[in-house]
Amino acid sequence: MADAGLDALLVTDRVNVRYLTGFTGSNAALLLLSGAASTEDPDTADPDTADPDTATLATDGRYTVQAAAEAPGLAVLVARVCGPALLAAGPSGPMIGRVGFDSAQVTVDAHEALAGAAPDADLVRAAGLVERLRAVKDAGEIDALRLACAAADAALAGALADGVLAPGRTERDLARELESRMRDHGAEGPSFETIVASGANAAIPHHRPTDAPLAAGDFLTMDFGALVDGYRSDMTRTVLLGPAADWQREIYDVVDAAAAAGRAALRPGVAARDVDAAARDVVAAAGYAEAFVHGLGHGVGLVIHEAPAVATTATATLEEGMTVTVEPGIYLPGRGGVRIEDTLVVRDDGAEPLTTSQRDLLVLDGHGRRLT
Amino acid sequence: MADAGLDALLVTDRVNVRYLTGFTGSNAALLLLSGAASTEDPDTADPDTADPDTATLATDGRYTVQAAAEAPGLAVLVARVCGPALLAAGPSGPMIGRVGFDSAQVTVDAHEALAGAAPDADLVRAAGLVERLRAVKDAGEIDALRLACAAADAALAGALADGVLAPGRTERDLARELESRMRDHGAEGPSFETIVASGANAAIPHHRPTDAPLAAGDFLTMDFGALVDGYRSDMTRTVLLGPAADWQREIYDVVDAAAAAGRAALRPGVAARDVDAAARDVVAAAGYAEAFVHGLGHGVGLVIHEAPAVATTATATLEEGMTVTVEPGIYLPGRGGVRIEDTLVVRDDGAEPLTTSQRDLLVLDGHGRRLT
Repeated sequence: MADAGLDALLVTDRVNVRYLTGFTGSNAALLLLSGAASTEDPDTADPDTADPDTATLATDGRYTVQAAAEAPGLAVLVARVCGPALLAAGPSGPMIGRVGFDSAQVTVDAHEALAGAAPDADLVRAAGLVERLRAVKDAGEIDALRLACAAADAALAGALADGVLAPGRTERDLARELESRMRDHGAEGPSFETIVASGANAAIPHHRPTDAPLAAGDFLTMDFGALVDGYRSDMTRTVLLGPAADWQREIYDVVDAAAAAGRAALRPGVAARDVDAAARDVVAAAGYAEAFVHGLGHGVGLVIHEAPAVATTATATLEEGMTVTVEPGIYLPGRGGVRIEDTLVVRDDGAEPLTTSQRDLLVLDGHGRRLT
Repeated sequence: MADAGLDALLVTDRVNVRYLTGFTGSNAALLLLSGAASTEDPDTADPDTADPDTATLATDGRYTVQAAAEAPGLAVLVARVCGPALLAAGPSGPMIGRVGFDSAQVTVDAHEALAGAAPDADLVRAAGLVERLRAVKDAGEIDALRLACAAADAALAGALADGVLAPGRTERDLARELESRMRDHGAEGPSFETIVASGANAAIPHHRPTDAPLAAGDFLTMDFGALVDGYRSDMTRTVLLGPAADWQREIYDVVDAAAAAGRAALRPGVAARDVDAAARDVVAAAGYAEAFVHGLGHGVGLVIHEAPAVATTATATLEEGMTVTVEPGIYLPGRGGVRIEDTLVVRDDGAEPLTTSQRDLLVLDGHGRRLT
């Protein structure tokens, strides 16, 4: 806030509010006054946690009990439209001075309401301030991500052990199996809509599971994750339901090598776009540049896609403690596709994978048993 | 669009894009040119469906196969940032004229990008145009909602029959049971985060299930719904885990009467706020006005909360074919609470409930069996 010359910051994104206060209700905003007004020593204060002396949380009447429990000590303003209410109330009447707002989250209509609530304030675009804090995880956050990743690993391992990934089952059925097994291993639920794509559907990166039965010889791509204590894991594995045809082996090996190159490039101080390039170069060198239709990865935490992006257009530089995915893919419309994805922590000496399921091509027989 | 004097409309909300085109990808925008350029007879055209002659869909490379399958015949522009790309491409170069955008959905930053992509266009606020179409459901949409409501009814009936709602089970456990049973009855998944709240937690309208075990004598509130073909049901039932104390019987009866009054007030031509008032008056007359801390209901369809709102501040007038919830509640912090909610269709002769589970107070014994 000081760097941006702000007297106050209005936080309107609910995940950012949760991150700073612990409050998880669906309608909330947080007004932070500049540290100048704080009695807390800025050298010892946790920069990621809202200071009760300078922060006011707003939420509506459905959540007053929950707010008191989740964000004890914070002043709470009860209002239906939280942002304008906070600016109108201020510390003692409508806000004045330079008030930052999240221009990447506040809509054109909402901005008008904010301006109307504090006509003497100077509303300043301040997008991404909290997201930048969120990108670097502390040990507690990484512990939650580790549990979320472990639940996904265990779900896949159990499904394999029980012969669930077999011809005749349906994509939807498998999605449900994976989700149920993640819950058995401590997940509150899936971390996003589970993707199970078989056969030609595996050429659709974000395919939604159907009642199509799996067929022998097909690729089967599973992109799924678990939610634990608000944190979300993300992993993709592609297996083969029968012996590999040459083209299948070829694209699998290319994606596998690209993923390895991406993981190897993850280090503090490296530009995120260079990590994308490290993997993309492998795919391009094999002649499949056009078939890798998305970015290499993304940050992951309280939100399944968060800062930093790891893509050709990314602008971030990696830092120790960032958690990102590496997920190259090759998609051949009408035939099938392969994606291999892990969630990793950027460490000083490289990348620590939090998802640990086997990446070598797994070939299953007609009963879902491992051939390789 | 003609009423708003628009030459074009940019649709950026993904649910609105889905509604108009059938495309369900997570990154999309749709540019609609004014009917003047259309070769389709406006008298026979379906106003809820995008016309291939005047509509262009944009999405990114992950979704090109899916877009061709879900929105056959529509021109597709492949772009990462869809809205600006559509305005820059236009029918033949950057858009000019009056271009409506969804000011309730487009962020301040995104608006700047749109303006930069088509500097000669006049960007006009046009929020809620598609939402207004979406509020009135056609027969196919109501069929999907009916199936979604039936899945929730069947899940609750099965859980009751199997004695699942019993002391010793946990809130989280019950949430999972309800979700699993909804899937058994055809749901693709829950339509929102299932709420199971027992004891004092039932005083928290949007409580998230915990591992707290249910206790005899407690209220148990279950607010849940099913997702079927993109449409979402919403139902709340509150049961008692043991014989009713006087205060429990009293607030249950008040909420039950308020819900009945709300349902009875649902008719075409009635102001949504008057429906809220019909139920709220019953709660207030019993002395619990302060304990009914939210609006009476909301539209429900592709999104769990959509137009029209049914609240004290609502501005809509009900129309035949709208689907809304009626869900009064009384919340007594530290003690517990009651909410009863149904999803209903507004019909010419009243309201047709799509959720049909028993509303009379259900009292269960220590084994989850019905005492009343």
